[in-house]
Amino acid sequence: MGKGRLEAFSDGVLAIIITIMVLELKVPHGDNPEALKPLLPVVLSYILSFVNIGIYWNNHHHMLHAAQKVNGTVLWSNIHLLFWLSLIPFTTAWMGENNFSKWPVVLYGFVLLMAGIAYFILAKCLTKVHGKDSTLARALGKDLKGILSIVLYILGITLSFINAWIGFSFYILVTAMWFIPDRRIEKNMG
Amino acid sequence: MGKGRLEAFSDGVLAIIITIMVLELKVPHGDNPEALKPLLPVVLSYILSFVNIGIYWNNHHHMLHAAQKVNGTVLWSNIHLLFWLSLIPFTTAWMGENNFSKWPVVLYGFVLLMAGIAYFILAKCLTKVHGKDSTLARALGKDLKGILSIVLYILGITLSFINAWIGFSFYILVTAMWFIPDRRIEKNMG
Amino acid sequence: MGKGRLEAFSDGVLAIIITIMVLELKVPHGDNPEALKPLLPVVLSYILSFVNIGIYWNNHHHMLHAAQKVNGTVLWSNIHLLFWLSLIPFTTAWMGENNFSKWPVVLYGFVLLMAGIAYFILAKCLTKVHGKDSTLARALGKDLKGILSIVLYILGITLSFINAWIGFSFYILVTAMWFIPDRRIEKNMG
Amino acid sequence: MGKGRLEAFSDGVLAIIITIMVLELKVPHGDNPEALKPLLPVVLSYILSFVNIGIYWNNHHHMLHAAQKVNGTVLWSNIHLLFWLSLIPFTTAWMGENNFSKWPVVLYGFVLLMAGIAYFILAKCLTKVHGKDSTLARALGKDLKGILSIVLYILGITLSFINAWIGFSFYILVTAMWFIPDRRIEKNMG
Repeated sequence: MGKGRLEAFSDGVLAIIITIMVLELKVPHGDNPEALKPLLPVVLSYILSFVNIGIYWNNHHHMLHAAQKVNGTVLWSNIHLLFWLSLIPFTTAWMGENNFSKWPVVLYGFVLLMAGIAYFILAKCLTKVHGKDSTLARALGKDLKGILSIVLYILGITLSFINAWIGFSFYILVTAMWFIPDRRIEKNMG
Repeated sequence: MGKGRLEAFSDGVLAIIITIMVLELKVPHGDNPEALKPLLPVVLSYILSFVNIGIYWNNHHHMLHAAQKVNGTVLWSNIHLLFWLSLIPFTTAWMGENNFSKWPVVLYGFVLLMAGIAYFILAKCLTKVHGKDSTLARALGKDLKGILSIVLYILGITLSFINAWIGFSFYILVTAMWFIPDRRIEKNMG
Repeated sequence: MGKGRLEAFSDGVLAIIITIMVLELKVPHGDNPEALKPLLPVVLSYILSFVNIGIYWNNHHHMLHAAQKVNGTVLWSNIHLLFWLSLIPFTTAWMGENNFSKWPVVLYGFVLLMAGIAYFILAKCLTKVHGKDSTLARALGKDLKGILSIVLYILGITLSFINAWIGFSFYILVTAMWFIPDRRIEKNMG
Repeated sequence: MGKGRLEAFSDGVLAIIITIMVLELKVPHGDNPEALKPLLPVVLSYILSFVNIGIYWNNHHHMLHAAQKVNGTVLWSNIHLLFWLSLIPFTTAWMGENNFSKWPVVLYGFVLLMAGIAYFILAKCLTKVHGKDSTLARALGKDLKGILSIVLYILGITLSFINAWIGFSFYILVTAMWFIPDRRIEKNMG
């Protein structure tokens, strides 16, 4: 089974997710900088989510590029990943509109955590299809970065109950860690 | 006539349908778990619809993969299918916001039923183009699963008038039945 | 210059237009058939617009399939067409929410008219690129159907001032006329 | 690394941006031309933004067509460009709804300026990947038009503080300047 439509469908969903988030930036009624002020936290969470979706697209791009084939399990792992990513516009808006208060930050992290786990599962399913000695498997390695992200998200969520900004800074940390595209595959694919 | 743009257009529409549904998850005003509570039925119907659109994309992917050519009738059968699927975000939101009360559950089932019939018609049109002895025709077989789905949807809609949750459980049953990708084609295309 | 991205971009825009129209189907507050009643004219105009966008996608598909090359003028004629089509969700909603009263029906027809003219221009630009003796030019012929559509739209708009339903029936007439995919090209490309 | 998915993702995002802008054209309550009047400035800013996104798609199309390869930096420069473009529906709506008053016009210009800078950076990154003697580098040249746009945007923003319409006319000037597709590359790629 070809991977072409899997890539096309994922690109479509990711492109829509990254773009409809902007619909949550409600146009304010006033026409001066004061009117924009309440939007600042929304813009801040928008930027973080935009970069995160960008990272997912980027890594997804790399991983699928290294893949030669997909099966039904891979298709569903992928849809599972897209499900969690599809909730990001909602959690982004909730967090932004409530100025990074506790529960919204917790939920935002939870959805990122689930997306991280879903990506990890997708990587495992792809590895299984290609075999342990495949270029893909070797390129992905032990996926320490993926596991570390999951740990950091759990830490961030937990710490959000003490102080939401501490939790939030953990999410930024994971984002920064992934901002550099997944060089492992790029190198090995040379 | 090539099938490439038919796949691309369908992927686009399905990707948008699956994603804009999340726009019906209106961001609540409160910033605590209490504020999320009324969203629970909306999220539940969102998940069911997400899986259903995922199933359609998956099976559509398989069926078109087995197809070699399309004609005008196939193009329109496909647009007909997309029409019914495009109504799912609306029925999903109506059902979720009314906490699975009778009429919304009936309408939700009705749109799924019509989408099921439209998919059945599309399969028949594709079979006609390829001939009864084609790989596609043999792969699709008698489409007993498709017919069973239609019967179960009709049953579910009827039973919703007695108890909406019984009807709803029938929709979940059909979803579960299709959750496994269409192995018939995968096997035969092997 | 390749036509691939022109097709991809057009498919994307058309897929989004056809799908976001459903966002104008506002979820009603009640949970019974009574609550759906005011939506009937909106659904009716939704169906007409859905079929029209479907027709445009279909004919666009056929015409670009027959094209071998595109230039800057073609790219802009195409964006011009997409502009008018992008206004259809707005005019569809306005017409549906006002129960097919005079001015919304006039505006709806006007946007369809402009889209028809834009399609005509796009066809001419493509013909110019390929030359008068090209397969594409011969396939498109004199585009009598395109000219007839424009005349019928003007008639429909004018008659809407007397009675909106008469005007509306003209729009349905044009839609019916195009519902059959553009066989001219299909035959000649045979 | 292939450029195919970069093009597909960008096409998707641009197609969505250009289309969801229309969602800001809120359907008015009245059913007569009077009810449409307040929408006129919104439509005007919609047209300008539509043409601008069209220009970006067009030039992006040309530039990527001339590119042979992409790397991680190019992917992120591209996402950076898409970020600024994704804010256009918001600034378009704010400007339109406030009838081109000072601050919205300033912000509209600022986002266009940042998009212009982002495009400039993307062009530089692509040039770096291909080398100074590549067809792409020679085709892009010194990108005087890109630099001129940035200067004109800064001028327009500054002058908006005196009179918003003067600033706005500068944005129209840049748009007009780019309306003609980037012939430099087309010629050199001949």
